[in-house]
Amino acid sequence: MQHVQIFDTTLRDGEQSPGISLNTAEKLEIAHQLARLGVDVIEAGFPIASPGDFEAVQAIAREVDGPVITGLARVNPGDVERAWEAVRDAARPRIHTFVSTSDIHIVHQLQSTREDVKGLARAAVAQAKEHLDDVEFSPMDATRADVEFTAEVIQIALDEGATVINIPDTVGYTMPHEYAEFLTRLYELVPKLHDATLSVHCHDDLGLAVANSFAGVLAGARQVECAINGIGERAGNASLEEIVMLLRTRGDAVGFDTRVNTQEIARSSRLVSRLTGYPVQPNKAIVGRNAFAHESGIHQDGVLKERTTYEIMDARSIGLEGNDLVLGKHSGRHALRQALEDLGYPVDGQVLRTAFERFKALADKKKQVTAMDLEALVTDELRDEISGYALEWFDVDASSRRPPHATVSVTMPDGSSSEGSFTGDGPVDAIFHAINTATGVDARLREFRVDAVTGGQDALGEVSVVLEVEGRSASGQGVATDILQAAGVAYTRALTVVVHRTRTEAEPALATDAVATP
Amino acid sequence: MQHVQIFDTTLRDGEQSPGISLNTAEKLEIAHQLARLGVDVIEAGFPIASPGDFEAVQAIAREVDGPVITGLARVNPGDVERAWEAVRDAARPRIHTFVSTSDIHIVHQLQSTREDVKGLARAAVAQAKEHLDDVEFSPMDATRADVEFTAEVIQIALDEGATVINIPDTVGYTMPHEYAEFLTRLYELVPKLHDATLSVHCHDDLGLAVANSFAGVLAGARQVECAINGIGERAGNASLEEIVMLLRTRGDAVGFDTRVNTQEIARSSRLVSRLTGYPVQPNKAIVGRNAFAHESGIHQDGVLKERTTYEIMDARSIGLEGNDLVLGKHSGRHALRQALEDLGYPVDGQVLRTAFERFKALADKKKQVTAMDLEALVTDELRDEISGYALEWFDVDASSRRPPHATVSVTMPDGSSSEGSFTGDGPVDAIFHAINTATGVDARLREFRVDAVTGGQDALGEVSVVLEVEGRSASGQGVATDILQAAGVAYTRALTVVVHRTRTEAEPALATDAVATP
Repeated sequence: MQHVQIFDTTLRDGEQSPGISLNTAEKLEIAHQLARLGVDVIEAGFPIASPGDFEAVQAIAREVDGPVITGLARVNPGDVERAWEAVRDAARPRIHTFVSTSDIHIVHQLQSTREDVKGLARAAVAQAKEHLDDVEFSPMDATRADVEFTAEVIQIALDEGATVINIPDTVGYTMPHEYAEFLTRLYELVPKLHDATLSVHCHDDLGLAVANSFAGVLAGARQVECAINGIGERAGNASLEEIVMLLRTRGDAVGFDTRVNTQEIARSSRLVSRLTGYPVQPNKAIVGRNAFAHESGIHQDGVLKERTTYEIMDARSIGLEGNDLVLGKHSGRHALRQALEDLGYPVDGQVLRTAFERFKALADKKKQVTAMDLEALVTDELRDEISGYALEWFDVDASSRRPPHATVSVTMPDGSSSEGSFTGDGPVDAIFHAINTATGVDARLREFRVDAVTGGQDALGEVSVVLEVEGRSASGQGVATDILQAAGVAYTRALTVVVHRTRTEAEPALATDAVATP
Repeated sequence: MQHVQIFDTTLRDGEQSPGISLNTAEKLEIAHQLARLGVDVIEAGFPIASPGDFEAVQAIAREVDGPVITGLARVNPGDVERAWEAVRDAARPRIHTFVSTSDIHIVHQLQSTREDVKGLARAAVAQAKEHLDDVEFSPMDATRADVEFTAEVIQIALDEGATVINIPDTVGYTMPHEYAEFLTRLYELVPKLHDATLSVHCHDDLGLAVANSFAGVLAGARQVECAINGIGERAGNASLEEIVMLLRTRGDAVGFDTRVNTQEIARSSRLVSRLTGYPVQPNKAIVGRNAFAHESGIHQDGVLKERTTYEIMDARSIGLEGNDLVLGKHSGRHALRQALEDLGYPVDGQVLRTAFERFKALADKKKQVTAMDLEALVTDELRDEISGYALEWFDVDASSRRPPHATVSVTMPDGSSSEGSFTGDGPVDAIFHAINTATGVDARLREFRVDAVTGGQDALGEVSVVLEVEGRSASGQGVATDILQAAGVAYTRALTVVVHRTRTEAEPALATDAVATP
């Protein structure tokens, strides 16, 4: 059985999805979980894109053990230098640099020439190699590029010492047989490619990201770039959990597997969904709510008679069952501490005290507190990093017989309290407008969503909002048994982030420049 | 360019997803939309499964013009007869009968023998042929079956006159190259298969449903079974919109297309999501909210410079843009009627009056009423078919400083009013318990979700709930600008359905028997 390396780009390509805005603590939390999951490489971000991106990549490079840590860089000296600064403290750092080889990108996007592209690729790989040994090169939009020109650029990158060559299907356009032919042709044109690691990076615009990645593996690729829950630009990247479980389930037939600890898949999926605010649809393969469910009578009947009649995977293999941890209102601090440690959140001192307070408040309302509830509370705590606005209290009078009215009190960034009132179209609308009145910020709601974290009438509700202020947007999440409370918390958090951004992003970063991604 | 037929199973395999319970009006609405979408075949249901299933298939056979209408039947005389009764009034009826050919199913599920399976298949196809010409046969779980035995059974079905042979990957286990080899081998073993239509039916357990279906087409299949939004058992079926847009976008390279009117895709997806209560994740290919969005600077920049740099499909091609219909509070009855007609909902008389009332109430709260808002209102009206419980009014006092209290009044099935009060953990919890108190039904909430139909602070909120009463569950949806109102409506609707079920399903249907599906 050969091992295929899993290169996770949840924090880079995934984080570029519209409305996702993770802070450094959240990115670190995801990176630690990816290490527990056992991925081979973490693409932690795009260091030159913003000071926040740089800081997060650097923190991950310094704190997360196990996987190779890489940062993305265009083929510019400034990008490569910034990526190096960000990853240099990792035990196993990598720089990932890229430039388009398709004429459509070279002409319309880069407004450059093939000759320039070759020179830039050569210089960038050489510059990266001055700093470290492990350098990945991607010819962006390769699947729509001339294969012979792409081969020339790859040859250059290999000559300069690139250790990994990644062939991105940037726009999600290729088909399995076409992609396999493209890779096979590259091996013919560049025999030296056999000495490097070939990598695939597929987008799901036509629903083929996993199949194309798999075809790439069968054609010789030994690294797959993918993201938890398949998030990423547009329709996203190949879904990590699908690729991993495909190789696990059908590995015997094809001779490949990964080193991933599949029992961490369900939890990784929940963490990413919660922190990004991106839901997983019920019929999503592997991690959807129904992936292991059987509705029709015969299937249930069949499953009872013999598990394999309708199940090709065991729910326990992705960590969905066998997690029987349940705490109640009589559980003590020690039990909570042990439970959090089992979940991978070692806490102590003040953090444990805060966690215990929130746990007790929850246990008062909810008979059983499960592992999923604890995860939600812990990830909820991660969100209060920047000092900003906080909801103190609210009163809402809601009725179908008169317009709903809300009064709120908000803690302002300077620590003072401010009250506001509003009569709106609905109780949520009234609270949001009342918060605008209290804070004096004219925010507009762009998206609003509520999910139950766990089932049952006393479930925790999780509210996600996306706000816009002066053309900048940010998301916020809140968790509570009361959805109005969760909504108010989510709104003030999003407000904190977006107001913080309108101030810090006066520093231009790449807002006007082009932020390129494979 | 050869045409591949699109066989839609949203109403059969899709409707078997956990928690989906469509009434006949809702199924008809989806079937009419599938006809507008231009699918070739509608699998309308599984007539023997329940009286409701039978009624819906019959109504669709009688009322929906254009596509072939088919009903599913096991290889039992009773099933085939019931399917025939249900589809006989269609202009172009089909019976779809099936039996497993894998030993794992034959031994553990059917507790039968290969010889019996052959006899049953022969008799069922012969029986169906006595009634009509168009008969489809599926060897269930074929991809895990002995190919030679499967070929024998197919030969029998063809000898009896089957016109379509469908090869289901029932458990979502196969891989594109393996599936193509399987189909190629069947053609070798059964030359007569060239005279029939070969069909593929793939499940997405490993994320390969679309790729496997596509591999099937390249291997000779000319019918693809799929569902809107990829719903269906477990991880669902191949997604219709992905298959269709794959063939549309890459048709030039492979020589295949479909007859689907792609501009109806976005609307079909919204309708199915709304009526089933199944959300579509933002990063879902083709119909996800982000499928055509671009977050990173370079992509936006690239799209502005030249559309094709990062877009392989035009959002207008699936009906996402160019839909500029907007009504406001000053729009009259005529404008509403015209708008509804443009949307495919011709209304008149009392229905138009009701629609106009709801439109006016909405326009009072919301500056602009869009086509999507109107769709939501119209589909919301479809839900009040069975007489049952209805929310009259509610009052809620919610606060972070004391437990929330709700009082509701509910119209009972006999037309009387009943009030109830409750102090709960949150305002939604309080309303739901108050409704339980008012109706005297002890329902338990299993799932709860809120989505915004359209963006912005004055958006319509859509609430979906799943309830359980005495082990039976049902879903309900409600739409309003006030989410507490929407939640109360959703809850009373789900209550109506689940109480209706506990009464009618005293008739056993297939509850204890086995309901088989490919």
